Amino acid sequence: METSVGGAALAGVAAGRLIGVGTGPGDPELLTLKAVRALAEADVLAYFAKAGRRGNGRTILDGLGKADGVAALFAPGQMAGILKPGRIELPLYYPVTVEIDKEHDDYKGQITGFYDASAASVAAHLDAGRTVAILSEGDPMFYGSYMHLHVRLAGRYAAEVVPGVTAMSGCWSLAGLPIVQGDDVLSVLPGTMDEAELCRRLGDTQAAVIMKVGRNLPKIRRALAASGKLENAVYVERGTMANAAMTPLADKLTDEAPYFSLVLVPGWSGRIMDGSA
Amino acid sequence: METSVGGAALAGVAAGRLIGVGTGPGDPELLTLKAVRALAEADVLAYFAKAGRRGNGRTILDGLGKADGVAALFAPGQMAGILKPGRIELPLYYPVTVEIDKEHDDYKGQITGFYDASAASVAAHLDAGRTVAILSEGDPMFYGSYMHLHVRLAGRYAAEVVPGVTAMSGCWSLAGLPIVQGDDVLSVLPGTMDEAELCRRLGDTQAAVIMKVGRNLPKIRRALAASGKLENAVYVERGTMANAAMTPLADKLTDEAPYFSLVLVPGWSGRIMDGSA
Repeated sequence: METSVGGAALAGVAAGRLIGVGTGPGDPELLTLKAVRALAEADVLAYFAKAGRRGNGRTILDGLGKADGVAALFAPGQMAGILKPGRIELPLYYPVTVEIDKEHDDYKGQITGFYDASAASVAAHLDAGRTVAILSEGDPMFYGSYMHLHVRLAGRYAAEVVPGVTAMSGCWSLAGLPIVQGDDVLSVLPGTMDEAELCRRLGDTQAAVIMKVGRNLPKIRRALAASGKLENAVYVERGTMANAAMTPLADKLTDEAPYFSLVLVPGWSGRIMDGSA
Repeated sequence: METSVGGAALAGVAAGRLIGVGTGPGDPELLTLKAVRALAEADVLAYFAKAGRRGNGRTILDGLGKADGVAALFAPGQMAGILKPGRIELPLYYPVTVEIDKEHDDYKGQITGFYDASAASVAAHLDAGRTVAILSEGDPMFYGSYMHLHVRLAGRYAAEVVPGVTAMSGCWSLAGLPIVQGDDVLSVLPGTMDEAELCRRLGDTQAAVIMKVGRNLPKIRRALAASGKLENAVYVERGTMANAAMTPLADKLTDEAPYFSLVLVPGWSGRIMDGSA
């Protein structure tokens, strides 16, 4: 049996289909119908995870069969068995790189090699004619690892991206917080940013979402205070997951924050307060 | 029979539940499972529309029963009859205000009065103990009309917001365009903005989404060219709808653009091009 170079299928086998599937922010009910269909059709289910972990995207699917309200909508037994029997599960384990600085060449080399190898594993299944769904928490093209595989494979194989509900949409909906209206500008800012730069950008926008909060929280608080936006900021952790929590940031007493936390600054609050909503 | 003031339920009737339901960007399959469940539970289905029109949110539901791939997942007959038999449909028709400038007091007065009256109609159903789902295209809290009702009613009634896939996620997924990665900043900018200001903000961000394109397209082109971002910009109209279209903006020959169009500037293109993705 001859394997291909450059993405041609095995002799006599039509190449398979690549689907990047957004799994939404955490609540299994926030999968779209299109995502459920893609999962039902997948011969191979691929997902990124830390070594030895199940991964957040895959964990969301574990909850799918347990969402009671949804189960009633589906054909008997359909939800529990939504994934194809006999499917191949393909976990893609990140190399252990947390000890290395992200700007360091060793990190870049390891992570690039990892994405290359992951793309090759997926390509082998596509060459064999299989439909491969790659799970991506939230929305695949919005800060998702999936895009590293997309840019390596989409030019060579039929590829489709199923958009998902982003973590930020999950968080502002859970908080019941109108985030932008009318001609508001929204800035999505990484909390890793330099403090002065974060402060400048917060002062130059109506609404903001600050991602990658974690250990950057003390800095984020200072930048919000300096830009006059601390009072309206809302902190949300694990938005839409079972253990979600939220509070006005000014009322949060500790600076501990998990990776899955966001700070939201609504753009619309002035107009809500003055009654001209 | 006594009707209530200020949101108390009718004597002997527990107040109903308000649900803001994101219907996603256009493709009925991009409804979430949670949205489908909310629609199945709704006694009243409310939606904004232009006078005499069906409205985009409601039109998306019309397509729900026709999405073949999805129908197979559901119990027989369930998809076609997903909405409650005997439900009340409550269209909320915008007043005819297109001829009036948005900054004009007459416009503000008319539109505020319209939202007040709409909230009162919904409140009457909630007081009668009914579950009211209000449709919102895309994501309810992201530039959605739903939030005008949310701020008027959520303090007085049990309210839940079901997040949806945004139009921008639908568009960049359709285009297969990774929009942001790593520490990229994303700016969501209204195309109504002053040209110099738009140019300044485009020059101050890695990635951008320009909303409200329509007749602002010539100005948007000039601002993109002046900020050096025209080359990477992608134009998408009616993303995820049946008649969707997209093209690199530089290749688009006319300046005609429907209201449902967006311009996307990916933040990640440099890294894709230099192979370090």
